[in-house]
Amino acid sequence: MSPLSSRSSVFTFQSAVHTSWVLQRLNEQRLQDVLCDVTILVQDQSFRAHASVLAACSHYFHSRTNVNAHLENQITVFCGLPSSFQVTVEGFEPLLHFAYTSKLLFTKENIHAIHSSTNILGFHNLELSCFDFLLPKFSEVKKNMNV
Amino acid sequence: MSPLSSRSSVFTFQSAVHTSWVLQRLNEQRLQDVLCDVTILVQDQSFRAHASVLAACSHYFHSRTNVNAHLENQITVFCGLPSSFQVTVEGFEPLLHFAYTSKLLFTKENIHAIHSSTNILGFHNLELSCFDFLLPKFSEVKKNMNV
Repeated sequence: MSPLSSRSSVFTFQSAVHTSWVLQRLNEQRLQDVLCDVTILVQDQSFRAHASVLAACSHYFHSRTNVNAHLENQITVFCGLPSSFQVTVEGFEPLLHFAYTSKLLFTKENIHAIHSSTNILGFHNLELSCFDFLLPKFSEVKKNMNV
Repeated sequence: MSPLSSRSSVFTFQSAVHTSWVLQRLNEQRLQDVLCDVTILVQDQSFRAHASVLAACSHYFHSRTNVNAHLENQITVFCGLPSSFQVTVEGFEPLLHFAYTSKLLFTKENIHAIHSSTNILGFHNLELSCFDFLLPKFSEVKKNMNV
């Protein structure tokens, strides 16, 4: 914080914990279905969420909003398309958790479904830092196991 | 990230930037009135916001929500009360900015109005780290100037 000097000076206090606090509280709201305003249908499962948070995390959900209109109350995500263009529960559930926690939980079994859903939905903050590092590592392990 | 071992292991990737990203996008939405679902009336001014973000930041706004009901679309904050119990524009506007940026901008002139609004609304992440340090400093400066 800057020193306190003349009458009209503007000072800034920056909280080191507030940003994480807000996302944690939003996640608690989501888990209790408090102030959630959208239901996402993926295959046969529905997920409650805040439209604003989804729009912040994904190109796809952002594109379903505009300045004048609210996101629809219910969104069915890529149902009935060929499987390679489908968002699956296996791929979407970890992304929803990531949106509200900054943490992506994955296994060798679901990483490709998550990657595919990430690409289709245009999820931010994962591609370069996560998949570009991760997928080659998994390929290496697979290659070494086959040798 | 943990090493890649057995088939059923669960790994975690944690993004260092995602939390800040989400709050920044929510702030952009607020400034463009995108997906805002509540209007806060303070004195003669209205402020658009996301009910979920306000509920995450403040005991008062959280108390206006419950599991079954959405926050009202319009909230008039402490109008018509004695001035010491009123939330003022001078005090509220910096708090709204803080809610969406983690940054509290203040001057010597408005710090007491902000402090008062913070207490009345039960705003999180400010009391100990900001005011408990700040207000004594301002008092010291005032005292030294009077000597």
